Amino acid sequence: MSLLFKHFRIHQIFGANTDVGKTILTTALVRGSAALKNRVFYLKPISTGHIEDADDEHIQRHGGPSKDKIETACLYRFHVPVSPHLAAQLAVGDESQKIVSDKTFVNSIASHLERCATQSTTPADMYVETAGGVHSPTLSGVTQLDCYRPLFLPTILVGDSRLGGISATISAYESLLLRGYIVDAILLFRDEYYRNSDYLTPYFAERGVEVVAFDAPPPIPADVAEKIASTERYYDHLVSKGGILPLLRNLDTRHEQRIAELSSMARRSQDTFWWPFVQHGLVKSEEDVTVIDSASSDFFSVHKSNTTSGSSLQSQLDGSASWWTQALGHAHPSLTLAAARASGRYGHVMFPQATHAPALQLAESLLQSGPGKGWASRVFFSDDGSTGMEVALKMALRAFSVREGLEGADRKALGVLGLRGSYHGDTIGAMDACAEEGVYTCEWHNAKGFWFDPPTVSIQQGRPVITLPPALASGAEPSDPDVTMSWVYDVAERLETPLAAVYRAYIERTLESLEKEGGPRLAALVLEPLVMGAGGMIFVDPLFQRVLVDVVRARGPAPEELNSWRGMPVIFDEVFVGLYRLGMQSTIPLLGITPDVSVHAKILTGGLVPLAVTLASDSVFRAFHGTEKASALLHGHSYTAHALGCEVANETLRLVEKETQSEAWTKARALWEPSPGTQPVVWSLWDPQFLHTVSCMDKVAEVMAMGTVLSIKFKDPEAGYVSHSAQTWLQSIKCYDPKSFSVHFRTLGMSRTL
Amino acid sequence: MSLLFKHFRIHQIFGANTDVGKTILTTALVRGSAALKNRVFYLKPISTGHIEDADDEHIQRHGGPSKDKIETACLYRFHVPVSPHLAAQLAVGDESQKIVSDKTFVNSIASHLERCATQSTTPADMYVETAGGVHSPTLSGVTQLDCYRPLFLPTILVGDSRLGGISATISAYESLLLRGYIVDAILLFRDEYYRNSDYLTPYFAERGVEVVAFDAPPPIPADVAEKIASTERYYDHLVSKGGILPLLRNLDTRHEQRIAELSSMARRSQDTFWWPFVQHGLVKSEEDVTVIDSASSDFFSVHKSNTTSGSSLQSQLDGSASWWTQALGHAHPSLTLAAARASGRYGHVMFPQATHAPALQLAESLLQSGPGKGWASRVFFSDDGSTGMEVALKMALRAFSVREGLEGADRKALGVLGLRGSYHGDTIGAMDACAEEGVYTCEWHNAKGFWFDPPTVSIQQGRPVITLPPALASGAEPSDPDVTMSWVYDVAERLETPLAAVYRAYIERTLESLEKEGGPRLAALVLEPLVMGAGGMIFVDPLFQRVLVDVVRARGPAPEELNSWRGMPVIFDEVFVGLYRLGMQSTIPLLGITPDVSVHAKILTGGLVPLAVTLASDSVFRAFHGTEKASALLHGHSYTAHALGCEVANETLRLVEKETQSEAWTKARALWEPSPGTQPVVWSLWDPQFLHTVSCMDKVAEVMAMGTVLSIKFKDPEAGYVSHSAQTWLQSIKCYDPKSFSVHFRTLGMSRTL
Repeated sequence: MSLLFKHFRIHQIFGANTDVGKTILTTALVRGSAALKNRVFYLKPISTGHIEDADDEHIQRHGGPSKDKIETACLYRFHVPVSPHLAAQLAVGDESQKIVSDKTFVNSIASHLERCATQSTTPADMYVETAGGVHSPTLSGVTQLDCYRPLFLPTILVGDSRLGGISATISAYESLLLRGYIVDAILLFRDEYYRNSDYLTPYFAERGVEVVAFDAPPPIPADVAEKIASTERYYDHLVSKGGILPLLRNLDTRHEQRIAELSSMARRSQDTFWWPFVQHGLVKSEEDVTVIDSASSDFFSVHKSNTTSGSSLQSQLDGSASWWTQALGHAHPSLTLAAARASGRYGHVMFPQATHAPALQLAESLLQSGPGKGWASRVFFSDDGSTGMEVALKMALRAFSVREGLEGADRKALGVLGLRGSYHGDTIGAMDACAEEGVYTCEWHNAKGFWFDPPTVSIQQGRPVITLPPALASGAEPSDPDVTMSWVYDVAERLETPLAAVYRAYIERTLESLEKEGGPRLAALVLEPLVMGAGGMIFVDPLFQRVLVDVVRARGPAPEELNSWRGMPVIFDEVFVGLYRLGMQSTIPLLGITPDVSVHAKILTGGLVPLAVTLASDSVFRAFHGTEKASALLHGHSYTAHALGCEVANETLRLVEKETQSEAWTKARALWEPSPGTQPVVWSLWDPQFLHTVSCMDKVAEVMAMGTVLSIKFKDPEAGYVSHSAQTWLQSIKCYDPKSFSVHFRTLGMSRTL
Repeated sequence: MSLLFKHFRIHQIFGANTDVGKTILTTALVRGSAALKNRVFYLKPISTGHIEDADDEHIQRHGGPSKDKIETACLYRFHVPVSPHLAAQLAVGDESQKIVSDKTFVNSIASHLERCATQSTTPADMYVETAGGVHSPTLSGVTQLDCYRPLFLPTILVGDSRLGGISATISAYESLLLRGYIVDAILLFRDEYYRNSDYLTPYFAERGVEVVAFDAPPPIPADVAEKIASTERYYDHLVSKGGILPLLRNLDTRHEQRIAELSSMARRSQDTFWWPFVQHGLVKSEEDVTVIDSASSDFFSVHKSNTTSGSSLQSQLDGSASWWTQALGHAHPSLTLAAARASGRYGHVMFPQATHAPALQLAESLLQSGPGKGWASRVFFSDDGSTGMEVALKMALRAFSVREGLEGADRKALGVLGLRGSYHGDTIGAMDACAEEGVYTCEWHNAKGFWFDPPTVSIQQGRPVITLPPALASGAEPSDPDVTMSWVYDVAERLETPLAAVYRAYIERTLESLEKEGGPRLAALVLEPLVMGAGGMIFVDPLFQRVLVDVVRARGPAPEELNSWRGMPVIFDEVFVGLYRLGMQSTIPLLGITPDVSVHAKILTGGLVPLAVTLASDSVFRAFHGTEKASALLHGHSYTAHALGCEVANETLRLVEKETQSEAWTKARALWEPSPGTQPVVWSLWDPQFLHTVSCMDKVAEVMAMGTVLSIKFKDPEAGYVSHSAQTWLQSIKCYDPKSFSVHFRTLGMSRTL
């Protein structure tokens, strides 16, 4: 709900502390603007204190010769001089506006700003004055910096000119910066004794922020008339000679530059970037480019150059959770603080044969209470899902080679076993672990292995359906019309069904015939458990994945070592599905099998910075253990286990675990209970009734949901990765409603995720 | 120079502002400690103000019944109540301690702490009280948080209990956190009216920090004797019932936990991590693990569990600049603030067909004034050097395939041309662009192409020498005994020499015979310009690289498109050599040729977080341009162009450019002038005289230096990646000198970098 208007400059004024002259300097700004512009607006969202001292009244009173142009407002007023959260708690009777939610509070400000802006057809300025210091609490108790953040208004910081004020000013600035605020100027009073402005001016110049010093107000005369006259003279001085007018010109320039910058970004980006997965020839015009000015929670604030009226910044729901990396929303203050803490303590420090607390804490929690619990013994760090999978493949293939005593060409000729439709990343090794089909390939892509066509799960016409691939459809039982979703995912229960036997026979037959045909020797089983994401949001029948692992393991001889992998190492690519994306920390309990290697990324760092981990069992690790450097896993990226990423991951895991205990999760899960009080095996934050309705729509072939994922597949004869039909269909919900928000989405061709 | 002693707990006390009760609460802490421990030390590094109010004297006076155990000290005392930097500037006569450098200042504190600690053989506590607020300037003008940071002492923050104090306390905490400080407790006075402690206690509990509230001091009686008695009663109350003793127990526990944690980290890490490029079988004991507690500038602060006396934290020079990622030192505050700013504004936001300011600014500066200047038109983002190279290879191979009209199997069979000893990363595609030799390989590594044995440059016995590979040694002129380093790197000048002709003929002959032999069709030339880093710090004769590019381009037909690549696209892997690692922004001017694709990472983000860019010329970009999604570059990582990394990169480029104008660089460069006043073609921060001396040593085969890189190659019959001999040799300089520092290094087998 960030707002930006061309002819209507808004600045929010924060104080480095209380009593630093915020209202005095804001009055001077308002008075200066009134002398220059057609209209000036002043808003004090919350006022506490004695009514005779109210800031809005002070400003109206001292608006100077042009005071008729000034409109002031106060949204929440309390008559006790304490912090707003306390004032709200203490408020009684007619002050019963009391505690309002942050959302209501910020919405009321946004509405007010929008109303003022649309009233003004000619240039006007607006000042929003906050209360106390930057982190003073608002009504709900959330501090101002966090509460006002969705509005993302450019700010002016009023610094502290007193003893200790250098520190107070810098710290307040840093708190603004930790929330990403634009600081257009720092204002403070001149003080000949402490000279804070002499210190702060070059300090902030180095950081690209202008500091403007003003003469301090004169001592207050005892006589009321003389007091008013003296104040008037002072404001007059500030505006005429005291520096307010040059400051206003700078603020106007900053405002214009910001708009010019935002307006040119689409074109400049089209000329400069080579976007991932984008056919530049299809980016026809500037409007096809999403210009992101800031982001907050689940929303982007995007700039539209072509708006004729209203704000040129609009809210847009991040419909794909930024490629499925987000879990806690954008710009979460706790993640920023975690990043800052690690950066401030270490920067990045090298990792081979070294250790630091963020990496160790992360590794231990992944092994002890995370997805590696009960089977993994080691954590290898890399930079993204793709590199994490390369590491996993190197681990598994080497472990297989060592046990089988393979050398030279035999090692090169190994292949993997997997499912058709899988996706493991874009580096060539990760691509080689996927079937080559369709457009998703490149010059050096050389698919190495065999991939089964998997049976899938979906909701069609309101009912869960297991769809068998052609190779199986004839041999299998027709699916039971009374199945429930909980039954479909009750793998242990289904292991004894006829369908399990059909799967088993089919897999065994296929593997035998592959051996006879002399294909590549299969050395690792690579699966995305439950859902193949980028390949088209394919919900694989979990029974098939379970039987596949069972068959592969049963075919191998019992290993000599205890607790060792059997048949071939099994890799779980949990980059997309892991860490509660599907409503469960790991897919292991549901499938009832542990892998030998697993890979995690995306949510791991809460959508802030790239980091991946590859977990391995001890038996895989042992294949590389010895006294020869040559037999070590000779893989490592420069920023391996960077402290910032590890610390952000630790904070993410903490907050996500907390989220899983939240009311929203508990309520949503309850809707998926197969019978009241019975825990659902799978569930989703999407309402099952909604799914039912959508699945019955004419154009919809099938839907499916699990955890945070909703997949809608359309009836489209031209389905495929390059299809544009979802894009067309989704235009209908993409259109912008200025009273709410639009939706940003990336379709996956055949499968569309919102 | 961070310090940690088992029996000697040190805490540094910061204030959220001036006049918040720092000295009062510190006095209570000292008095409490004195009641419990054998000795207590108090240090006020800088004191300003009237002598009768001096904090150290107040503490000595109010030490209570155990005051004989208390030792106080003040290192710099000024008699004027202003900020220390101003006091130092104003100081005259006997106050002429005046402005000292931060290094001297912090060293004097460290020496004092060490002296106190070694005096104490029995448990003791020490409190270091800072001046004013957290960011109040020290003598040099640098603020306390940055100045004291190398000491990395655990801190106590004294919060502000007044109106506005919630904000002041949180902001001060955030500033501490931005420098990575450990905050063990926040103390403040109880105030029944403003109730800041009621708010701050749960606020910080959520952030894992304990808040302790104390009764505020009573009003000061006018009578001197009564004033002293009242103060005594107050301190007595704080210690006996007011909460000081439980706080001290908590501080002791925190101290013990910190030591226990650090002492267990080596073992736990050995049990948990799978380190990159490490043979775990060779990590024999806990002492082989580098336990990094913090880092600052060029130093790690490492923990040694086996110290019998002295600090268990020791400074260690980061001798490999953390795998060559560092440019500005660890934990640089400007990079932390850049990271925080972007995180606070965006988090990460998705990038396909989108734009945000940090990415756009970075891309434009790389193209307009960075290494892409004059030839590149597009920037593709990825996560590390290896993924950046995968992208480069996909670009080049596709561009070649499209122009040559190759399809299907012909595309798969393409190879690259390069140099033996090159290294482009650890993902399998990047590995495939390197020759397979020695131990650096894996199951799916399938080297695709041909690699020349390159001629190399080094300093032997004080003289620059060009060493030719066996295939050339017979046919080439012996190298001139009078060559200078500047002449060797004057590529334009050398193009007309007989050696250039020899190179040209050899390359042409080899390429022709490769074609006849029917090897893979060569589709891209891939070079690490000037130096092959990880492959062994091989300084390649730049003339050979230049002639190689010239020959490859001359062999291709003139392209139809203007300004298009010719022969085959040329990729410069500048991940290690770029962005001033070699003292130059880019190697392009020296070589006199522009590539068609280049890759940059490592220094790009100043050693903080992973980020890579692949720059491409317009002709390469055009090969993917069209109306079919299938012909786009279908490559992208989840965190592509993450805002945090881009913003850190922007700040890094700004600071590195500034560094190149510094006195240190100018002076170092001057030593490399071939004649006074003549700019050297290549230069190093290492003194040429030092190189000369080392190159003449018995055990040294050759040395070489350029920019920040120093390479020393030893005479070793068993040379190779797996050699341990450099490690043995370097033990001699690794030993710890408690008065200075030790050196952390990673040797490269055949080549050793410091």
